[in-house]
This record gives sequence, structure tokens and C-alpha cells, in this order.
Amino acid sequence: MTLATFLLLFALVIIGARVGGVICERLGIPAVVGELVAGIVVGNISIFGFHVDLVQQLKTSEIFHTLSEVGVILLLFMVGLEGNLRQFVKTGRPALVVACAGVVAPFLLIILGWKFMPFDHGNIHQQIFLAATATATSVGITARVLKDLGRVGSTEGQIILGAAVIDDVLGLIILAVVSALIKQGQIDLMGVIWITAKAVLFLGGTALAGNLLLPRFIYISGRFDSGGLMGAIAFSMCFLCAWLADVVGLAPIVGAFAAGLILDDVHFKQFHDARSYSLEQLVKPVAELFVPVFFVLMGIGVNLSAFASLAIVKGALILTVLAVVGKLISGIFIKRPGIDKLAVGLGMIPRGEVGLIFAAIGSSLGVVDGNEYAMIVFMVLATTLITPPLLQWRLKNIPMPQKPL
Amino acid sequence: MTLATFLLLFALVIIGARVGGVICERLGIPAVVGELVAGIVVGNISIFGFHVDLVQQLKTSEIFHTLSEVGVILLLFMVGLEGNLRQFVKTGRPALVVACAGVVAPFLLIILGWKFMPFDHGNIHQQIFLAATATATSVGITARVLKDLGRVGSTEGQIILGAAVIDDVLGLIILAVVSALIKQGQIDLMGVIWITAKAVLFLGGTALAGNLLLPRFIYISGRFDSGGLMGAIAFSMCFLCAWLADVVGLAPIVGAFAAGLILDDVHFKQFHDARSYSLEQLVKPVAELFVPVFFVLMGIGVNLSAFASLAIVKGALILTVLAVVGKLISGIFIKRPGIDKLAVGLGMIPRGEVGLIFAAIGSSLGVVDGNEYAMIVFMVLATTLITPPLLQWRLKNIPMPQKPL
Repeated sequence: MTLATFLLLFALVIIGARVGGVICERLGIPAVVGELVAGIVVGNISIFGFHVDLVQQLKTSEIFHTLSEVGVILLLFMVGLEGNLRQFVKTGRPALVVACAGVVAPFLLIILGWKFMPFDHGNIHQQIFLAATATATSVGITARVLKDLGRVGSTEGQIILGAAVIDDVLGLIILAVVSALIKQGQIDLMGVIWITAKAVLFLGGTALAGNLLLPRFIYISGRFDSGGLMGAIAFSMCFLCAWLADVVGLAPIVGAFAAGLILDDVHFKQFHDARSYSLEQLVKPVAELFVPVFFVLMGIGVNLSAFASLAIVKGALILTVLAVVGKLISGIFIKRPGIDKLAVGLGMIPRGEVGLIFAAIGSSLGVVDGNEYAMIVFMVLATTLITPPLLQWRLKNIPMPQKPL
Repeated sequence: MTLATFLLLFALVIIGARVGGVICERLGIPAVVGELVAGIVVGNISIFGFHVDLVQQLKTSEIFHTLSEVGVILLLFMVGLEGNLRQFVKTGRPALVVACAGVVAPFLLIILGWKFMPFDHGNIHQQIFLAATATATSVGITARVLKDLGRVGSTEGQIILGAAVIDDVLGLIILAVVSALIKQGQIDLMGVIWITAKAVLFLGGTALAGNLLLPRFIYISGRFDSGGLMGAIAFSMCFLCAWLADVVGLAPIVGAFAAGLILDDVHFKQFHDARSYSLEQLVKPVAELFVPVFFVLMGIGVNLSAFASLAIVKGALILTVLAVVGKLISGIFIKRPGIDKLAVGLGMIPRGEVGLIFAAIGSSLGVVDGNEYAMIVFMVLATTLITPPLLQWRLKNIPMPQKPL
């Protein structure tokens, strides 16, 4: 792709995302839905008889793919910055309960509901794999919806986010287990223990380093600052943690979220840029530039023509209903009083990145065929599109603990 | 390149740039020199016996190349935002004089000085091409040095920037002429008129649209804003103008600079984000993330081992001296009183992007061989490295019209 094409496409993505976002906001729907729909419309423009070379270039562009990943990483970093480690630990127990229930319930429901599928039922490996695709809530979409509604700071918001991060970790462990099961025909117990240990070590190590080493390191760096160092430390921390998470087998977004949790404005109070910006204000313009790239590209990847088959639509609907009910159940297990269990359950509905990662790996393993792939994409999309209005409706009824951002 | 590698490299580039920048600032040298030197050290690490695969990946990465281009585009956008159209037009006449003198003088000096070169003198086409590489001042480096010194707003700063933008346009016209001369053996007059007309039309059209249509368009957009629209408009304007400049045959940075000139804080006063940010404050965190990528990658591209040959070093020194003297002369032709002619001349010294574009095209045309390429790179680098301290020294003696940013 030439530089000129890149610049044009980037500008068009920004404009398309905002037009979609503004229209949705006018209709009282969170902006993220508009960005997704803008992407779907552009990505399926060939259905209306237009064949636009630029759209094709955008779909296959490596650089936009990378920038969209950077977008979701920055989104989780922002969300992490809005919370802090103490708050995250405080909501840790209900979040863990919700995460576990929200992984087990959809998994069992889909295995049980498999016989209602309108086509060949496949073998048990295929059923297990398809069920596993619906286990992990999308941290990116959940985070974005909560941000659009100004509810990241609410107790429900913190539980949803915590549970979404935890079930991403669980989801990736399940992926390792299920893949090994399919490839080797048996479960590799040592492998499961190893990936679990790495995840726990990474999260524990980040929390420890964030409490002990980081404040001191940033304090010393501050002596050398004459502008620009605050942003450099924040962004390099974010990217390094995302990289490290990937290295230990977790999703990069989990690392970015952890980086946001351990960084705090108080660390930077003697920095030059802290006079004009809080950490959030510094990261926001960068995040706002790249986050829409993620959602627009996610929409562009949706191939509407796959849903011309009635059997696939029926199968997709069954999968979606089971996936939704499975997550709604998860809120019930919260014991702490004063928490809106339905709001938490609704917040856990959207599936996203991890589901799509499952689908891609399943294709390469030969357990997910074209029909099932289309069904997974439908489920991801439907759960993403129904959540914002439902969550908005439900959160209206509970008091607002913070002003919208 | 995997996402993990990209994240790691991005973090390392940010860290490397800041470490270099902080060391230079401590030594009283503008930060940009530190970023360049950090790049040179990393890029030539194999001389010290280290063979680092990551460095190789960074050198050849398409995505980092694109991001570095985005970096210099954002730098010029920022610089354009600091100025405005009226100020730019006010310094237009001295800037035009300086630009023309600064193109003609080095060109003639190098043609005349050619006989002192320590090797085969080549034919007249080669001499013309090598002379043409030294005509255009680097807007990127000039802008960055003036920013580092907090002097973008001074009269001298505005003249230097204006002249640097104009001589980029002149340089690209010369490139078209010289390339046609070499390929066809004669000058294509219609081609020259056409590229000149496009350049004038683009700049005039941008200025006109910026005065008449833009404020109205932004005002209407503002009614639909509920956050995020200010940044979306600013960045998409920047990228669209850069793209348009490329389409009409100018450098994208010229378009980005023009976009910055026509955008102003007053246009956005009813926008949501205008409460927390000025336009500059909004663009700054994004620019600070990507600008160092440009300078670090520029440094990484320098191959120090080419300078093991004494003849090349001698040739490079002669070329550099002629290039420096040619630009120093340019300040003399300013008629307006009260302007520091030496400061303007010093500010015009650095060569950069356009010189390197010349070198690359010359290689592909077969008129620039490996030795001459190394000499051009040396000249670009030397002029870039000597300017910051010289300009800083000179500007100390003239009164400061604005506070450093």
C-alpha cells in the first residue's frame, strides 16, 4: 500500500467511524454500534453492486490490521487507567465468580443444545470447540460500551470488566486445552498447568512490580524530564506489558489493561506534562484516533452474504440465544448485596476478539467449517449489537456514581 | 512482523528516542539530535560485533516505515497549527526570496566545485543531479529544531519555515525537470508548467477553502458533537490534505503543513473537547508518539561503514561545505530590516527527506552510484547535526518573542 493510499484510507476510516458514531448517538445508541455498522456497510458494499478497490485494500492491509490491534490495546489501556489496582482487587471475588459461571454456563448450554442445530451434528470435538468459542466475553466491546455510557467506574462496571478480563484468561487456557485435545486426542495436563502458571505469574508479577518498583522508577525518571517523558513512559509501559502478555501466552489486551491499572496520575505529579494533562487526557487523543480503526475493521470483516442460507441463520440464532442465556445466568451467582445482577449479566454478553481467534484457529485445525465460521461471526456480531441498548436501558435504573467522560 | 514484535519494537523505539533526547537536553543540545544519534547507534550496532535480529526487522519493516512518515506528517501539522495563514502570508515575501536564493546558490556552488571532487567527475547529468539533491531544506528537521528551541513563532522561525516549505515545492519541481532531462535528454517544458500549476493550485485552493468553506463546515459539524469530533476533524483534515498534496505531485508534508495553517482553535470553540484541550494540546500526544519514529528510523538508515573510504569522506566533506555555504548565502537577500540574516541562513542548512528522495530516485535512474549515495547521506546527516547547536547559539542573541512550548 502506498503512503497516499494509507493516508486516504485512514482519513476515510476516521470520518466513517465518526459519521456512524454521531448518527447512533443522535438515536440514543452508544457510538461503538455506529462504528461497527459503518464497517459492515462499507465491507459489504459489493452487495449493492459497487466494487471499490479501496475497500478491498483496507480488508487485506497488514498495516491497518496492526493499527486496529493497537487500537484495542489502547482502549484497554485507557480502561485500565480509569480503574486502579485496589479497586480491581476489591471487586475481584464477585468478578471471579461471574467469570467462572460465565464460562461454564454457555459451554454446557451449547453442548446440550447441539441437537437442535439444523445440520450435521459433527463429532464431540467439533461440539466442544464450538461451545468453547462462546466462553469469553469481549473485553474490548464491553469496555467501550461502558465508556460510551460513562459507567466504567460503577461497581457493576468494575465487576463486568474484571470478569471479562478473567474469562479472557480462562478462554485462552481453554483454547490451549481444546486444541491439544483435538491434535493429540487427549488432554495434556502439564500444558494446562504451565499456561495457567504463566498467566498467574504474569498478573501477580505485574501487580507486584506496579506496587514496588514502578513508582520509584518513574520518580527517578521525572528528574530528567523536560517535556514528553510522561507520554513516553506511559505508552512504552503499555506496549511492553502487552508484548509480555503475548509472550506468556495471554492476549496483549490483558497486558495493556494491567499496565493501565498499575499506572496512576500520582506517579507523574512532578512531570512537565502533568501540568497540562492527566494520564487519561494524554492517552485519550491517541486512543480516539486508533480505537475506531478496530471497530470499523471488525465490521468490515463481516460477510453478510453468508447469511443467505436459512439453515445457517437458524443455527446462528440458536448459538446466539444459548450464548446470551449462558452469560445472563452468570450474574446470578454474585453474593454481595446491592449489585444489579441483571446489569452484570447483560454486560457479560458481548463476544469478540477471543471468539474470533477461536474461529480462526478452529478453521486451521479443521474442526470449524465455513458454515460454523459464519455462525460464530453472527453470534459475535449479534451479542455485540444487542448489548449496548440493553445495558443502557438497565443502567438507567441504577444510580450513577460518576459523571460521564 | 508479528503483533508482539511490533509492540516490543515500538516500545524500544520510544524508549531509545527518549533516552537519546534526554541525554542531549542535559548537554544543552536539542532532543532531535539525540533521537537521530540513538538511531545511528542502533542501526550500526553490527559494527560493534552485535547482530540483532530486531534491528534488522525494524530496518525493513513496512509498518514502521509508514508510521515514520505519519510521524513527520504530524510534525508538520503541529508546526502548521502553531502558525496561521495570515502570519504565513506576512512572511511570504522574505520567505520566497530566501527559498529561491537557497535553491540557486547551493546548486551553482556544487556545479562549480565539482572539479575538487576526489574521484571520477562523471558527466554533466550526474553533476546536475548531485547538485539538485542539495537544493531543498528539510522542513521536518528545521521544524523540529525550531520547536525544540521554542522559536516557531519568531519572525526568523516563520521565514525559515516558509522558505523551507517553498523550497520543498521548488525541489520537487527541479526533481521532475532533472529526471526528464536524464530520461529524455531534453527538458519537457509542458511537464514543468503542469507540475508548477498543480502546486500553485493546491496551495491557493487550500488557502481559499480554509478561509471560506472550512469555518462554516466545522461550525455545522459542531452541532453534532458529543465528544471526539474535534480530534476526528483535525486528524482527517491533516491526512486528507497530505494525501491531496501527494496526488498533485507535492510532498505529503506540504499538505499537512497547509492543513495546520488553515485550522484554528476559534473554529472549534463550541466543541466538547475544546473545554479540555486546545488543538495543539490534542495533537501533541499523538505527534509525540510518532515523530520520534521518524527521526530514529532516519538514524537507523545511516550506514557508517560506507565512510571507511578516505575518498568518500573527502568528497562528502566538500559536498557538505558547499551545501552549507549555499544556504548561508540565502539569508543575505532579505531586504526587510530587523531580521537576523545569519539565523535565517543557519536555519536553512539542514537537508533531509527531499535530499534522500533525490538520492533514491537518482539510484534508480543510474546517475547516483553507491559512493555518491553515501556522500548524499553524509551531507544530509552532517547538515542536520550541525544546525541545532549553531541555531541555538545564534538565536540566544535575539529577543525571544514567545515562551517555549
